[in-house]
Amino acid sequence: MPTPTEIPASHRDLVESPGVVVLSTVGADGYPQSTANWYLLDGDVIVTSLTRSRQKFRNLVAHPKATLFFFDPTNQYRTLEIRADAAIEDDPDLTLLKRVLAHYGQDLESFGGPLEDRVVVTFTPHRAVTFG
Amino acid sequence: MPTPTEIPASHRDLVESPGVVVLSTVGADGYPQSTANWYLLDGDVIVTSLTRSRQKFRNLVAHPKATLFFFDPTNQYRTLEIRADAAIEDDPDLTLLKRVLAHYGQDLESFGGPLEDRVVVTFTPHRAVTFG
Repeated sequence: MPTPTEIPASHRDLVESPGVVVLSTVGADGYPQSTANWYLLDGDVIVTSLTRSRQKFRNLVAHPKATLFFFDPTNQYRTLEIRADAAIEDDPDLTLLKRVLAHYGQDLESFGGPLEDRVVVTFTPHRAVTFG
Repeated sequence: MPTPTEIPASHRDLVESPGVVVLSTVGADGYPQSTANWYLLDGDVIVTSLTRSRQKFRNLVAHPKATLFFFDPTNQYRTLEIRADAAIEDDPDLTLLKRVLAHYGQDLESFGGPLEDRVVVTFTPHRAVTFG
């Protein structure tokens, strides 16, 4: 594993709060794909839960370089961009999914999404860029 | 020029309002780059003003496939992703920059950014994906 780039203290609150992050991956056709995601800060890395059926999962398998874009919901010009290396592991017991859901005040029962074929994606920060 | 994919009527308001869009390009190192941008809907295409000194400009020259991610500031789960082909032209008279600024209630005097080496980037929608 590479040594994570530190998340700047000035913008760490954007990563700690249970907001959404815009995750951008790169597709086989060369276009970026961007989606809103739930996530969890886990020490120096950011983790999220995906299912194997999603295009972003396939993109990350083929091209494990992604960017996470955080913004302050009260000030759209205060932003944090984290370019990251992605690593994927299975989550057969949904351990990580449960942790992510708990961060958003949810559990497996209240969560409406699919529970099959869940994986953990760990994003190790490679570069951080702040604005505002 | 390719024929633009239509912007879905259900989410067209997100593109018409003077908010920020998260523009993702792909860098030479393979990482996406994401930044918050002002923009203007111009018929069926989306235009923005950049300077030649920005990394996203260099990314777009080398790799003219980009993604624009719009979200509803009052509902982060209502989103529109537009994957697009980018074309670049000079803007020596700042005609386009002035139009973009006017959409945000600004003009060249109130605008604090650089006026040199401005280009117009035209994003022709290739695919649109909506949520919420």
